[in-house]
Amino acid sequence: MASEQPLAAVTCTAPVNIAVIKYWGKRDEELVLPINSSLSVTLHQDQLKTTTTAVISKDFTEDRIWLNGREEDVGQPRLQACLREIRRLARKRRNAWDGDPLSSSLSCKVHVASVNNFPTAAGLASSAAGYACLAYTLARVYGVESDLSEVARRGSGSACRSLYGGFVEWQMGEQTDGKDSVARQVAPESHWPELRVLILVVSAEKKLTGSTVGMRASVETSPLLRFRAEAVVPARMAEMTRCIRERDFPGFAQLTMKDSNQFHATCLDTFPPISYLNAVSWRIIHLVHRFNAHHGDTKVAYTFDAGPNAVIFTLDDTVAEFVAAVRHSFPPGSNGDAFLKGLQVRPAPLSAELQAALAMEPTTPGGVKYIIATQVGPGPQILDDPSAHLLGPDGLPKPAA
Amino acid sequence: MASEQPLAAVTCTAPVNIAVIKYWGKRDEELVLPINSSLSVTLHQDQLKTTTTAVISKDFTEDRIWLNGREEDVGQPRLQACLREIRRLARKRRNAWDGDPLSSSLSCKVHVASVNNFPTAAGLASSAAGYACLAYTLARVYGVESDLSEVARRGSGSACRSLYGGFVEWQMGEQTDGKDSVARQVAPESHWPELRVLILVVSAEKKLTGSTVGMRASVETSPLLRFRAEAVVPARMAEMTRCIRERDFPGFAQLTMKDSNQFHATCLDTFPPISYLNAVSWRIIHLVHRFNAHHGDTKVAYTFDAGPNAVIFTLDDTVAEFVAAVRHSFPPGSNGDAFLKGLQVRPAPLSAELQAALAMEPTTPGGVKYIIATQVGPGPQILDDPSAHLLGPDGLPKPAA
Repeated sequence: MASEQPLAAVTCTAPVNIAVIKYWGKRDEELVLPINSSLSVTLHQDQLKTTTTAVISKDFTEDRIWLNGREEDVGQPRLQACLREIRRLARKRRNAWDGDPLSSSLSCKVHVASVNNFPTAAGLASSAAGYACLAYTLARVYGVESDLSEVARRGSGSACRSLYGGFVEWQMGEQTDGKDSVARQVAPESHWPELRVLILVVSAEKKLTGSTVGMRASVETSPLLRFRAEAVVPARMAEMTRCIRERDFPGFAQLTMKDSNQFHATCLDTFPPISYLNAVSWRIIHLVHRFNAHHGDTKVAYTFDAGPNAVIFTLDDTVAEFVAAVRHSFPPGSNGDAFLKGLQVRPAPLSAELQAALAMEPTTPGGVKYIIATQVGPGPQILDDPSAHLLGPDGLPKPAA
Repeated sequence: MASEQPLAAVTCTAPVNIAVIKYWGKRDEELVLPINSSLSVTLHQDQLKTTTTAVISKDFTEDRIWLNGREEDVGQPRLQACLREIRRLARKRRNAWDGDPLSSSLSCKVHVASVNNFPTAAGLASSAAGYACLAYTLARVYGVESDLSEVARRGSGSACRSLYGGFVEWQMGEQTDGKDSVARQVAPESHWPELRVLILVVSAEKKLTGSTVGMRASVETSPLLRFRAEAVVPARMAEMTRCIRERDFPGFAQLTMKDSNQFHATCLDTFPPISYLNAVSWRIIHLVHRFNAHHGDTKVAYTFDAGPNAVIFTLDDTVAEFVAAVRHSFPPGSNGDAFLKGLQVRPAPLSAELQAALAMEPTTPGGVKYIIATQVGPGPQILDDPSAHLLGPDGLPKPAA
């Protein structure tokens, strides 16, 4: 497998994003075109990221991919759609600009390796970061410079939002070919430095309905989902954009909660109904509303994707007190020391008044497994250091460090 | 308090009803006018009923009311609205027909006593049966023969549906004065003799949002509720009526489940969100869908009101097997013998195939506290036997039997 020829190797990282206006439902399953626009916050890669290395070589006889160290079937349709799309864009560019030194790369097979810096078991949607990173890395290795929304989207719809840092909208578009269904940055990561994000990782007992299957069922059976997409989301996109631009935290927080709730409402309106929120999720919802009621102000927001984990938005001056409230209501299990990961949060006391206002007996320990504290972050990055490559000179995964 | 004059005493009973097209939201709080029509099944009074005695006497110096043996404040607005309305109708009738021997009754104060034959702690909505019984009994004692929808409705919206047996619709009406917001029988109790109803009484841990407060919050904050009322319910009313007329059980069952789910979806879309379904409710939902999937046919339906209790509809040939499935998934607590109340259900074995299809480990005992087996029943009844009166010759509650 070793070759005399130098390999073209590129390693990039990409972030996780959390939607505050939710994507749920495709109008075109093949092209991954959504029934409504959506808007997300890109999380910082210091805490959550995917790293991907792509290597092309004339010596490779087939495309291959390794995820978290394990080789996976490269023939799966979404992966194939990404590879096909990136090569189509590369070919288009070569035709437009003959004599491109990269043009020969088109005949090369590619090896890809990808790892997450967070446990898959946490139930955090990793496909968005994964496909964004794949698109971004393949684009570099094949010399593609055009918009990558379509490449990432074909892998996983929400992946196109992980192509940018800060605050990102995925415009649903109108065209049947999906060319105008693209991600755009609404505001950069530096725009709202006080914003903080806490991920409350919740134990899930049972297998959840996957989001692809779930959204298909919702599109087919929920009368409320269609109404939401057509009549509710457009105004919410505009309002959310305004809240972000003006750094209106109460407005941002309330709309984030309302939109999470409405998404889960459409899941309940699906037949048979889908429930992603469990008893712990509901306790977190009540905790947030009581915390806000105590302060007479919306200081904290929750949002839930297709699982029981809560993502909390708040400002830096409120993080410590809210973490104390979570610790009180959800006592850590045996991992007291490792309960809080990520950004440092100074310990804060829980006032007797707030404790009374929460009106919650602590649950049995471990309902919230741990918290990841993070913030808004930048988009995908290229790593220049060759030691970062996940694939060795032979194009195979390096032994795990 | 004792009087020479004979008292006019009337005792009636009225049934509980369970909506299969849900009422949630008022367009007029004062007149209790709904934002959509609804449709319900009247349950048999052998299992669930309210009994009410009303006595009028010239000797009474004030209106008084006793509920389940305890005197309550007769000044509460809903009660006052019922009393005012029934006296208005009585006055109207007296004016139309002068010389009515009952006309003098209008100047009399009334004593009312009311009891339920089921524990309030069961969390079964008793207000519908209670206000229907109040309206029906007051009408008899005051000699009112007109439609009682408005009297009952002013007490509790869904109470107007308990004025009839069988299958009953509450037409929302269009007039601002609510005169056309009335209950009508869709089919009598004899129409579908095979239909069976199981009430699965579930332990509720926490205080629930009352339905008056909850529906007001939903009307004010849920965009999905308005759409449901305007664009979804009208077609569902027509379809449900067709299913009942044709005794189309799968159609009836599916629409019942969908409408329950959509009602709870609008609760989730309320801000702050309302959750009436708990973990046990969700287990029952999954149980029903797996039971139906196993049979390849919709043989059982669930519906949930503003609480975690499930009401199950099925046909007589399926009751025994479904009860066995519930017993398996929700082992009775210490009350094994008293787990099933009401209609007799012969014990049935649970096949290994069905048990495997349910794919449910039994929970800790007691999640379902008990089951009440019942069926469709008639509307309010007058009891002729004077010994049934809850108030004695002195107009005060008899000592509890």
